[in-house]
Amino acid sequence: MKLSLNEPIIIVNFKTYLESTGKKAIKLAKQAEKASKETGIQIAVVPQFVDVRLLSDIVEIPVLSQHIDAITPGSHTGHILAASIKEAGAIGTLINHSEKQLKLSEIDKIITTTKIENLISCVCVNNPNVSKAISALNPDIISIEPPELIGTGVAVSKAKPEIVTNTINLVRQINKKPIVLCGAGISKPEDVSVAITLGTKGILVASAVVKAINPFELLCKFAEAIKKIEK
Amino acid sequence: MKLSLNEPIIIVNFKTYLESTGKKAIKLAKQAEKASKETGIQIAVVPQFVDVRLLSDIVEIPVLSQHIDAITPGSHTGHILAASIKEAGAIGTLINHSEKQLKLSEIDKIITTTKIENLISCVCVNNPNVSKAISALNPDIISIEPPELIGTGVAVSKAKPEIVTNTINLVRQINKKPIVLCGAGISKPEDVSVAITLGTKGILVASAVVKAINPFELLCKFAEAIKKIEK
Amino acid sequence: MKLSLNEPIIIVNFKTYLESTGKKAIKLAKQAEKASKETGIQIAVVPQFVDVRLLSDIVEIPVLSQHIDAITPGSHTGHILAASIKEAGAIGTLINHSEKQLKLSEIDKIITTTKIENLISCVCVNNPNVSKAISALNPDIISIEPPELIGTGVAVSKAKPEIVTNTINLVRQINKKPIVLCGAGISKPEDVSVAITLGTKGILVASAVVKAINPFELLCKFAEAIKKIEK
Amino acid sequence: MKLSLNEPIIIVNFKTYLESTGKKAIKLAKQAEKASKETGIQIAVVPQFVDVRLLSDIVEIPVLSQHIDAITPGSHTGHILAASIKEAGAIGTLINHSEKQLKLSEIDKIITTTKIENLISCVCVNNPNVSKAISALNPDIISIEPPELIGTGVAVSKAKPEIVTNTINLVRQINKKPIVLCGAGISKPEDVSVAITLGTKGILVASAVVKAINPFELLCKFAEAIKKIEK
Repeated sequence: MKLSLNEPIIIVNFKTYLESTGKKAIKLAKQAEKASKETGIQIAVVPQFVDVRLLSDIVEIPVLSQHIDAITPGSHTGHILAASIKEAGAIGTLINHSEKQLKLSEIDKIITTTKIENLISCVCVNNPNVSKAISALNPDIISIEPPELIGTGVAVSKAKPEIVTNTINLVRQINKKPIVLCGAGISKPEDVSVAITLGTKGILVASAVVKAINPFELLCKFAEAIKKIEK
Repeated sequence: MKLSLNEPIIIVNFKTYLESTGKKAIKLAKQAEKASKETGIQIAVVPQFVDVRLLSDIVEIPVLSQHIDAITPGSHTGHILAASIKEAGAIGTLINHSEKQLKLSEIDKIITTTKIENLISCVCVNNPNVSKAISALNPDIISIEPPELIGTGVAVSKAKPEIVTNTINLVRQINKKPIVLCGAGISKPEDVSVAITLGTKGILVASAVVKAINPFELLCKFAEAIKKIEK
Repeated sequence: MKLSLNEPIIIVNFKTYLESTGKKAIKLAKQAEKASKETGIQIAVVPQFVDVRLLSDIVEIPVLSQHIDAITPGSHTGHILAASIKEAGAIGTLINHSEKQLKLSEIDKIITTTKIENLISCVCVNNPNVSKAISALNPDIISIEPPELIGTGVAVSKAKPEIVTNTINLVRQINKKPIVLCGAGISKPEDVSVAITLGTKGILVASAVVKAINPFELLCKFAEAIKKIEK
Repeated sequence: MKLSLNEPIIIVNFKTYLESTGKKAIKLAKQAEKASKETGIQIAVVPQFVDVRLLSDIVEIPVLSQHIDAITPGSHTGHILAASIKEAGAIGTLINHSEKQLKLSEIDKIITTTKIENLISCVCVNNPNVSKAISALNPDIISIEPPELIGTGVAVSKAKPEIVTNTINLVRQINKKPIVLCGAGISKPEDVSVAITLGTKGILVASAVVKAINPFELLCKFAEAIKKIEK
């Protein structure tokens, strides 16, 4: 499964919720797949490491890893090897999520590794300044997620639109290539519309979808919100 | 698959070697399974996280995780949830491997979590003093692995037998329950014999097996070495 | 300045409050010194690293470091060398404070270093189980501080006396030597009385004293509370 | 003491060598001061935290801290508060030294803090790519130090001049302001000449000076090497 960086993207981070672990991860991923097929909008899923192969084998939508470590093959018990998540079917990875922040030299090394392994790199940043710095490291995707809004239901795109526009501007000053997503607090279709209007290519969403009564329905609404703006 | 703590145990840590990733992990695990069946000695395998389910589904020997994090379900992107590795088929986990050392409060929390989840806890320690401290936290298994010997081919059981006997004595001063394994540098059947003679219940081994030309054969020799002593 | 482990002790952690930095650290340390002299109860102060020498040169009460790193002299930019804090006048150090938690192997190495350097080791622990583990490493002082109570003004000695008594019992099961202090939420003389009654040798206190309108007066009250019980 | 960013600079990192601790730190700092006065080249010293005030009080050359933490005043036992090292006399700080690497969000926060506290920020980077990223965060100084050369006596300026020139070029693509220094392996006057010729404003040096039989003499030679090029 490929992810096109020229088309809008919804990335669903499964985190370590029980609602998105193991068998429940399958169910959720299938709903994401169905929503993607029905709406034509790309939806990628980001399960826990142990569930990467499980989902890659079952659904026909892109599967990302939540993290990889700045290591090469060898003696690194308990670490995440890029080659292993790739062989399991992941086509890319989150890097530096606010819940798994990394040293700068590690981020640099991991982005380099993703290029070698032909994996898509999605680096999460906490503010526009940091997005500018990351832009210099040339990842595929930069996702702006102010940590203070994660899990609040208050969307960055609505509550602090200037953070999103500043991010896009600062990223572009350095590098035309990376696409920008936004996350943190995205829970309503309107949050998605605003994110796209502000210039992002899509969203990174977690609890709102994982804990939704009907994730399929919510993802469809998100996708439709994107389609309306894109026209 | 269960692991009996009353019988000798060989644990094979796959680390992040390419020789023990994905399809090659399957091949290696099958050799471990065959060696276990032919010799009657328990052999457990410790693959990378993404391969836990893959192996659990295919082989009939115990599969352990290389690590779990001191978290409960929730917002912990990039972390290892006990419940997720359990659902994937792991029956236990390494904790505090010298390549993934943890804070003391985390080790305590993780051991507590393993008890709740009914997972076997195997805590790695770097010296006898630390093994005594860990003994107070009541894990199932304590594996003594002096970091300076890991990957050297110089076995702790032969080069520094007093480290092994001190560990056993100090652990026993505090707690009769945990069994003691030894690792670091184990590469020859003789290293295994000595380990058992010194009073351990078995070994934790990695590169010697993973990179062996014939892992099955080597594991059989290790198992036979144990059987000779046990008689 | 020496600290006797046979007499009651009040340790005042200056943390990184502005009220206890630089010149204000001097003022606060002088009040602690005066309270100690007037009441006859030992009071030690724990300033920031940069203020260790400043206070050691000026006051005649024991000065401790807030932390040392598990290093030997050499290439460790930005780390805390035991020999350097000792030369600056510190007679001991906190280890593993809940705001500066350490890996188990580091705690072991640091305690060993304090013995070599003839420094007093005060290891902070978050629960009774962990105190038992630390007891096996034979530090001079174990301070029980449940993190959830730090800075709350709700004293562990009053709110959860069983945590204090369990700590003392578990420490004693392993090792007769370490004295036990308690911290977290200590703010009233009564909290101190209860701590002593429960069997501790004293307290570790921070914000209540640092931010007191009259730290001298509060420390005198704490000291008097100890003296009443000790009789 | 001020540090001019328009003039050549030699920064001497004392690390945690015994040869540069306490009284020996005074002796070394006085030699640096004397070399600076005799040659007219700025020399700054970077002692351990506990020695910052000691040196600031005694020598009339700039004193930097080896690190500060990404914290504000409060409950951060064992951490380094910008305000405390400033009150002790430091006029700036190293950030992200290869021996004390930081998360990207921390580097960003620390640089912001140095601006608020009017401290000079000197961020260490391991390769040109990372220097470009740091440039986006607008520090005062960027010091390129390939970790593999630190302490080797093989100077980056001589062994890998392209690393230095790439760093300068990439930094300048993003930001005209930060000056660039180079470190790692600098041990001979010729290493310094080459560094200046390549376009740096000076050097960051450690063991070569700290462990020199005559640090004063070596620093004078370094300074003279700079003066020859500058003419």
